[in-house]
Amino acid sequence: MNNYMAVVEYDGSDFCGFQIQPGNIRTVQGELLGVLEKVLCQKIKLGYAGRTDAGVHARNQVINFRVIKDLDTYRFRWSINSLLPDDITLKEVREAGSDFDARRSAKRRDYCYYVVNDNYQSVFLKKYSILVTGMLEIEKMREAAKNFIGVHDFSSFCSPSVMEENTIRHVYDFNIEKNDNLVTFRISANSFLYNMVRKIVGTLLEIGRGQNSPDSIKKALSSGEQGLSGKMVPAKGLFLDRVMY
Amino acid sequence: MNNYMAVVEYDGSDFCGFQIQPGNIRTVQGELLGVLEKVLCQKIKLGYAGRTDAGVHARNQVINFRVIKDLDTYRFRWSINSLLPDDITLKEVREAGSDFDARRSAKRRDYCYYVVNDNYQSVFLKKYSILVTGMLEIEKMREAAKNFIGVHDFSSFCSPSVMEENTIRHVYDFNIEKNDNLVTFRISANSFLYNMVRKIVGTLLEIGRGQNSPDSIKKALSSGEQGLSGKMVPAKGLFLDRVMY
Repeated sequence: MNNYMAVVEYDGSDFCGFQIQPGNIRTVQGELLGVLEKVLCQKIKLGYAGRTDAGVHARNQVINFRVIKDLDTYRFRWSINSLLPDDITLKEVREAGSDFDARRSAKRRDYCYYVVNDNYQSVFLKKYSILVTGMLEIEKMREAAKNFIGVHDFSSFCSPSVMEENTIRHVYDFNIEKNDNLVTFRISANSFLYNMVRKIVGTLLEIGRGQNSPDSIKKALSSGEQGLSGKMVPAKGLFLDRVMY
Repeated sequence: MNNYMAVVEYDGSDFCGFQIQPGNIRTVQGELLGVLEKVLCQKIKLGYAGRTDAGVHARNQVINFRVIKDLDTYRFRWSINSLLPDDITLKEVREAGSDFDARRSAKRRDYCYYVVNDNYQSVFLKKYSILVTGMLEIEKMREAAKNFIGVHDFSSFCSPSVMEENTIRHVYDFNIEKNDNLVTFRISANSFLYNMVRKIVGTLLEIGRGQNSPDSIKKALSSGEQGLSGKMVPAKGLFLDRVMY
């Protein structure tokens, strides 16, 4: 069996998330498996770097799968893309070492979250960002974001349903940029807890609006209490941007 | 009567162009008039800077209209936006001098055309760009584009249907940028002939592919012959970017 990796881009708007689900539910994994199994005429088991939620987008999701025959990766990619729906595309396919596992081999994942800070929502960004109308204090959010960098217990910044897992994560980097009216939150970590980015961005937006101080992050991190983090922001502003191996 | 100007953004994908048409045809002007007349309870005559075609988008189309009453422009914009469909929004509304006419007062219009130059089309740019798979020679297109700058007869770079109008136009500026796999053609002129940008970009793409030389532009411009320009590119890559007064 040959092990292949592929880089996948998808618009999450019309998917119930990445992971396949029982019943007639549209998922990225379901669409990919349908086309891969049809073209390859074999059962496929799909590894993937990030299990994105319903509505979350990906620029460079990474998957891997084992194939009986040798593939001409360039032609294979074109034939897969011709069968995939309009909202998924394979950007790249290549042979991977036999040990490669899209999830377990990943060293770092980068997510972006987009906020339009203006008094109107752009028709072009509506599906890919949220609108915040009051002027956000970018510097305060940057100051607060620094507190997330490093190794921390993120139990106050995830969905309560994952409280029993190991909630320690290593955040490598956190940048907040503002270009014109678009605020981009870019966060890198070894891996992320369920809803972690959306909880973190929600907390920072409260600070950007002046409803909380940058120092509040320290307390939330050290206490591990759910009540000390902000509201979770909607999925549509979130992109899995890159996975590093 | 008070004269108001508004800046309008729209995704042209699902419109049969800007200009209102008889029958049950969806146009930007038709949607705008419907909402404006409903909110203002009067008949509205709409001036506009650029009559964009079916499928063409706008970041900053400019319109003007005369209103009997005084408007609180901020609240007015919010109420109009709450009634407009998802693919049109008013970015700004303000009072204009009584002489202001969105079309006749415009001194300069900027259009952008987007080409993805790669071996896959991004799911996010599919509706807003065309895909060119062979590597484009950017420098040759830049060299060729310089020939358009200045005052020229553009009769070989427009739809044959407008051959009887005055076909002299002044192109102020023409830039071609490449960022990652995205090529942006940005052209500014006093005004544009019907299909002019799409014909010009089509001609440059032939040069970028090596099918024609940068010098061929001079000949096409001086001859005025339709056969010497390239094929018109699709509408979906075209944006009315800015109008200057």
